[in-house]
Amino acid sequence: MKRTSFQHMPCPVAQALEVIGDSWNVLILREAFYGATRFDDFAQALGIPTNTLARRLKELVAGGILELQAYSEKPPRYQYLLTPKARDLRPLLLVLLQWGKRHSPVELSTALVDSLTGKPVDLMLVDRVTGEPISTRHRVIRQDRTEASSRSFAFPDPAPGP
Amino acid sequence: MKRTSFQHMPCPVAQALEVIGDSWNVLILREAFYGATRFDDFAQALGIPTNTLARRLKELVAGGILELQAYSEKPPRYQYLLTPKARDLRPLLLVLLQWGKRHSPVELSTALVDSLTGKPVDLMLVDRVTGEPISTRHRVIRQDRTEASSRSFAFPDPAPGP
Repeated sequence: MKRTSFQHMPCPVAQALEVIGDSWNVLILREAFYGATRFDDFAQALGIPTNTLARRLKELVAGGILELQAYSEKPPRYQYLLTPKARDLRPLLLVLLQWGKRHSPVELSTALVDSLTGKPVDLMLVDRVTGEPISTRHRVIRQDRTEASSRSFAFPDPAPGP
Repeated sequence: MKRTSFQHMPCPVAQALEVIGDSWNVLILREAFYGATRFDDFAQALGIPTNTLARRLKELVAGGILELQAYSEKPPRYQYLLTPKARDLRPLLLVLLQWGKRHSPVELSTALVDSLTGKPVDLMLVDRVTGEPISTRHRVIRQDRTEASSRSFAFPDPAPGP
């Protein structure tokens, strides 16, 4: 089944989803971040049908997320490596990890920890330039060139912490 | 078509994807963050077939991401509001926005800006406790209870900045 294309939408979230694709692709990316490079690594770690895996890997190569590299000439064998564009998705994986752990109905033993202190990490988004935590002060601006107008959206704040 | 379920995977990324679902659901969430609450708001903003939209909204309510609230008794009418669990997905939407803007093949006018200074925001993940930027010093630990072993993964660093 062909996925719906979001390519015509002038929104960065839609453009990102167009390239990243669906949930299987995100799990393939997770494995690549964990160090998987070969077809069999991905197949074994994910328990994904091999025809589905082959199609998804092809999509991710086409989208510039993975790149093929030969590791054997006879027989010809290729491995899949994260591109710089994919490495830039690291925050996405980490944010998903934190949210999933916090809101999962079952307790999960996977955690992001500081390897020096062994303590769990509590992720927070800040502005790299000012160091300020992201809040509703930071607004999403969408400039609509055809209508010569711009719209501004305040994302609601997350629920107040303890 | 029934989506593949990731419910049996003991990984927070898989658990998050199980609840968030596919790309349409993320775009519905985006609109909810932008202020959409009614069925027609979502339908108009997304150009999504109404039967697909109805199914996705039902999924998001079942997953505890949206909650129904009556806004009219006669006739009975409901709106969809973000739950606290959904508001906690704000960083995910922002990270997608930044990545999509940075890597889109076409230039996009949507941006996250600081509303006081008007300057674009460059998102960075830090540890809330130490204030340290997230780096490979922060490792993903997966403790496998059945094998009484634990595995540790160093996410590769993003490509070095300028």
